[in-house]
Amino acid sequence: MFESLEVGKQIKNKVFNEQSLVLRQQLLAAQIELQALDFPVIIVVAGLDGAGKGSVVHRLNEWMDPRGIESHAFWEPSDEEESRPFYWRFWRRLPDKGKIGIFFGSWYSSLLKTECSENMPAGEFSRHCRNIQDFEKMLSDDGALIIKLWFHISRETQYMQLSQDAPRKKQNLRVPADAQQARKQYKNTIKVAENLILETDSQHSPWRLIEAENNNYRDLTAGQLILQAVQDRIGNGTPDAGDSQKHERKTANQPTILDTVDLSQTLHSEDYKRQLHKYQTQLQDLAWQFHAQGRSVIAVFEGWDAAGKGSAIRRVTNAFDPRLYKLVQFAAPTDEERRHHYLWRFWRHLQRDGHNTFFDRSWYGRVLVERVEHFARPDEWGRAYSEINRFEQQLSDHGAVVLKFWVHIGYEEQLRRFKERELEPHKQHKITAEDWRNRERWPDYELAIEEMVSRTSTHYAPWTLIAGNNKRFARIQVLKTFCQRMQDALEKC
Amino acid sequence: MFESLEVGKQIKNKVFNEQSLVLRQQLLAAQIELQALDFPVIIVVAGLDGAGKGSVVHRLNEWMDPRGIESHAFWEPSDEEESRPFYWRFWRRLPDKGKIGIFFGSWYSSLLKTECSENMPAGEFSRHCRNIQDFEKMLSDDGALIIKLWFHISRETQYMQLSQDAPRKKQNLRVPADAQQARKQYKNTIKVAENLILETDSQHSPWRLIEAENNNYRDLTAGQLILQAVQDRIGNGTPDAGDSQKHERKTANQPTILDTVDLSQTLHSEDYKRQLHKYQTQLQDLAWQFHAQGRSVIAVFEGWDAAGKGSAIRRVTNAFDPRLYKLVQFAAPTDEERRHHYLWRFWRHLQRDGHNTFFDRSWYGRVLVERVEHFARPDEWGRAYSEINRFEQQLSDHGAVVLKFWVHIGYEEQLRRFKERELEPHKQHKITAEDWRNRERWPDYELAIEEMVSRTSTHYAPWTLIAGNNKRFARIQVLKTFCQRMQDALEKC
Repeated sequence: MFESLEVGKQIKNKVFNEQSLVLRQQLLAAQIELQALDFPVIIVVAGLDGAGKGSVVHRLNEWMDPRGIESHAFWEPSDEEESRPFYWRFWRRLPDKGKIGIFFGSWYSSLLKTECSENMPAGEFSRHCRNIQDFEKMLSDDGALIIKLWFHISRETQYMQLSQDAPRKKQNLRVPADAQQARKQYKNTIKVAENLILETDSQHSPWRLIEAENNNYRDLTAGQLILQAVQDRIGNGTPDAGDSQKHERKTANQPTILDTVDLSQTLHSEDYKRQLHKYQTQLQDLAWQFHAQGRSVIAVFEGWDAAGKGSAIRRVTNAFDPRLYKLVQFAAPTDEERRHHYLWRFWRHLQRDGHNTFFDRSWYGRVLVERVEHFARPDEWGRAYSEINRFEQQLSDHGAVVLKFWVHIGYEEQLRRFKERELEPHKQHKITAEDWRNRERWPDYELAIEEMVSRTSTHYAPWTLIAGNNKRFARIQVLKTFCQRMQDALEKC
Repeated sequence: MFESLEVGKQIKNKVFNEQSLVLRQQLLAAQIELQALDFPVIIVVAGLDGAGKGSVVHRLNEWMDPRGIESHAFWEPSDEEESRPFYWRFWRRLPDKGKIGIFFGSWYSSLLKTECSENMPAGEFSRHCRNIQDFEKMLSDDGALIIKLWFHISRETQYMQLSQDAPRKKQNLRVPADAQQARKQYKNTIKVAENLILETDSQHSPWRLIEAENNNYRDLTAGQLILQAVQDRIGNGTPDAGDSQKHERKTANQPTILDTVDLSQTLHSEDYKRQLHKYQTQLQDLAWQFHAQGRSVIAVFEGWDAAGKGSAIRRVTNAFDPRLYKLVQFAAPTDEERRHHYLWRFWRHLQRDGHNTFFDRSWYGRVLVERVEHFARPDEWGRAYSEINRFEQQLSDHGAVVLKFWVHIGYEEQLRRFKERELEPHKQHKITAEDWRNRERWPDYELAIEEMVSRTSTHYAPWTLIAGNNKRFARIQVLKTFCQRMQDALEKC
């Protein structure tokens, strides 16, 4: 989930100074408009220690008119607070309609802290998350605009921040004195954070994840997200396509998760043959073991046009006995499919335990082509992320291994392959006007892919990004991932 | 929660025949209209064994056009079903847009059955309920109209039904062969059902509870509720005030929960004095015990105008040291209060642990006066029931004893008291034009009270209906309830 928040997004000082000036004016204008309106704005500032949440709160206060905004920090509860139900401390600080309340430390802090240190029973954690959802739903039903920001930094950055800041921070007992400690617990913290975000993400109060490695990018993005959310709300009840893409445009020149894929990796013919044989043999064996234990793989293949998805899939299916798998290819939905929920057509193809289902294109169409081509409304594809997460969680809870591949190639490499296809008679059928049209939408797809990976890469169903410029390398990566994940699953049992 | 479903609602054969003829035509008309529309209707038929769920399904199929409707019964899962995630069996049977699907036995059945027989850990049960909510929310977000009917019968009726039906039912292994068994488990089943309903009741897929003692009433009410829900949906996105009251009018001549209160009960002056002394002494003692243990009572007093609420409250507060309680009286909200969620003004008055809060009128105004006088929109007061339940659950989970009184008097008795007030100079200030206006709305209030009690009487915060025609009797009832509930709470610790 946080992979896409460690790709090195940054904004130079000069650009920051220019853009923040504009942003500030816009925020003030929005604040003035807000005063006359009938709903409060609740901003939750959360994230990892050392990510600079405090600085963000400072910055927001600096940018906006202090008369309409109140910041609340929550440390240890007072005795007044402790002797009343947990939510009392938040109720008493909820902003009036027309006002903005910043909650720095909130109904999330104590749950995150407790879960990180002691790991409560699964049901207990869920119950708390559900209470949070109910609370936010109630406020949102009443009109409140809830904006939840999560600031992420990498393990190394956290270590540096907490070490460097140490002299200043020592006065603050709440920050772990020991940066080493935080470093050790980083992986666990990240896992808890992922669960917390997944369980409390909803359409009425979505989480917005922000890379906090670069202060300029962090602050400006936070401010822009808040501005955008308020403007969307003021402008019209639900954000429309135009609005929701405003922010995307702005960040279009930032690196995305795809830029972290090293496309220069290759595999020579000899190596390829050897590894192909090795992994296919291993996979064949694993397939029968899975069958014997009544376990299944559900694999999703997505990728750019001409990325070599099809040929990678063939290398996988070659290793499976035809009785053990079903490969389903998806194009536009049929009439009957259109008369159901978009997930219906994928549910119906699910094979039984012990049998495997491979999806050549999948439910991710909802947040890729349907989003980019406006076949689905923003509220439709917007809620699809959590619907998909819940769907995949059901698959995983039932015992299936869920694999998801994005086969990535470079923009130039795609052009080369398109041209090659046009020239070779036996490949001409593989290239259509639609492919060229999609290619024009490349930047839109990049953003859609980034958000897809960021919001649906979970511990139970992680995305694997495949470097596809070299087809041999790509195929082996896919086979290897199959073998590893299946092996892991067998060992866990 | 189910008290209001055992009040003897019934419809005579002649009336049933007339009304069902009309209903049938309306249902058919709605079905035809539905065919051209872009959403499916999902009807969940659930409830106690012996309540006649099967007959209802029969009846619905008889009334409607079989071409647009499909009924699905779920017994033991097939092996095909068992070897896929739990929800697969339901996905494959979801109705097309424009069609109706009746789910007799549904995603609720196995959870109810399992929880009744083995009581899973609290968190586990909640997790399943949350999955149900997510599933229904997803369908509803996609446009589905979900109608969930719960059929209730009393313990005795269930015993009779299961005994009488025994010969026929013996062929059906799923029905408990032993009516005795069901009778023994009745209380537990009811408790589980209450939890299930509370945890899965939501605005997008609300439960509708139906008294099933009388077959005519049961079938007709089910049909009318379905018709109303479909019509509301076809007519406009959200039900408006006019529509939502159509059904109420129809059932206005049925007995309500208030009719179960025996208003003839009285207490003579001598007895009264003795009991007043006894319970006030006891309460005084309990109040200090509560204080010593840091526990609190949160009591809500509601009732008809002139029912004697105020004088009952005084008998209670007399027993408490003034340092131990706060009595809060509510009239129209202040400007500041209006700028917050309607529950905000109640949260802010909550006293600390060890101190008690008494509310003379309360958050129930939302579903009483605000509903009847249209100060709140139907979607606002409609979602208030579950908001209130969650609020009271937080109070109860925090350790407070939540008491809720409705002081009931007869329609004639109110008139007598109004006239008396007008005649006596020192009481004239107590009677206003508003009181007379409210009196005209008596039947509307009756229905609002019935729904309030039905939807918010929970095991953690039950309603107590007080027979108020005799003031002395009423006061003692209130005091007695205080003593009992506080005593119980101390014993449980």
